[in-house]
Amino acid sequence: MSKEERILEVAMRIFRERGYHAASMQEIADAVGMQKGSLYYYISGKQELLFMILERAIDTITTRLEEIWRSDLPPREKLWQAIINHLDIVSQRLDMLTILLRERHALSPSQQEAIDSKRVNYERLLQKILAEGVRTGEFRDIDVKIVSFGILGMCNWLYQWYSPEGRLTAREIAEIFGDLIFRGVLARET
Amino acid sequence: MSKEERILEVAMRIFRERGYHAASMQEIADAVGMQKGSLYYYISGKQELLFMILERAIDTITTRLEEIWRSDLPPREKLWQAIINHLDIVSQRLDMLTILLRERHALSPSQQEAIDSKRVNYERLLQKILAEGVRTGEFRDIDVKIVSFGILGMCNWLYQWYSPEGRLTAREIAEIFGDLIFRGVLARET
Repeated sequence: MSKEERILEVAMRIFRERGYHAASMQEIADAVGMQKGSLYYYISGKQELLFMILERAIDTITTRLEEIWRSDLPPREKLWQAIINHLDIVSQRLDMLTILLRERHALSPSQQEAIDSKRVNYERLLQKILAEGVRTGEFRDIDVKIVSFGILGMCNWLYQWYSPEGRLTAREIAEIFGDLIFRGVLARET
Repeated sequence: MSKEERILEVAMRIFRERGYHAASMQEIADAVGMQKGSLYYYISGKQELLFMILERAIDTITTRLEEIWRSDLPPREKLWQAIINHLDIVSQRLDMLTILLRERHALSPSQQEAIDSKRVNYERLLQKILAEGVRTGEFRDIDVKIVSFGILGMCNWLYQWYSPEGRLTAREIAEIFGDLIFRGVLARET
């Protein structure tokens, strides 16, 4: 792992545990095992570090959804893969996604804009999958935008209650949510 | 409106717009139109103010759900009322609920514990409604806990995207979410 990677990983953990505002660059330097001065050789400041984490989070979750959207799978299967992808990443990268979902308002306005446009891009990909299913008749004639926000809400909220030591794995939760969502959107019982 | 009420209302707006950590007691005093010293006559500090807002938020949303739970309505109607209640409060009290859903980790550990136990109480009420529906056969044999988190996620997430100037009212959104959820949980097509 490169030094920069290591700094990012440590910062994710500390930002998640202590909250972005309460965390200090000194703590991060101590946890990485370097001088605070040296830290600034890699990262220009705490807000820049936050931005890098949020960008990494949204890019990670989007890359896979783009592959799913561009695949030849039928809309139903694309939606299922999208749900799995989302829940897998939230559950496996709980630190990174918690910061994305919770600390966005600590960014500068221009940084927020950059992250928001990536977020909108992610939402649109999900909406395209839903719209495709409506077009092919696999899905009901739903309000694609509102339903996409409902699905995102269910999946994002995982960051508030999921525990790796919990009763169910992320895949088992995906099956329950997937079942719920499919009954909600499919055109007919299958 | 009492002085204390007015302080709470102003603090909700400022905490939501600027984030809890970035907001200062001086700003709140200025916006209320009083000296910072006088503010401390009503409120012991910023963290106490945050706690009061979070407690108010969770108590508001719970009071109505308790009435719904204790009513004689059938489970399906209770669930529908619960969804409306939740979305109504998130949409009408966007400032208060945003702070509840976003700033909880800025509380002291004992304050967090107090809010968490109220949150668990709210979740249990929703789970009781779902479990009652499973018992009467109105709902499928769902995983009550996970489904309740899915519903809460859908409804809570509203705070991230809802705008009073948007295309749909909170009631129209409730109808779309309600339809989705009912298709997901009802034992048979109705």
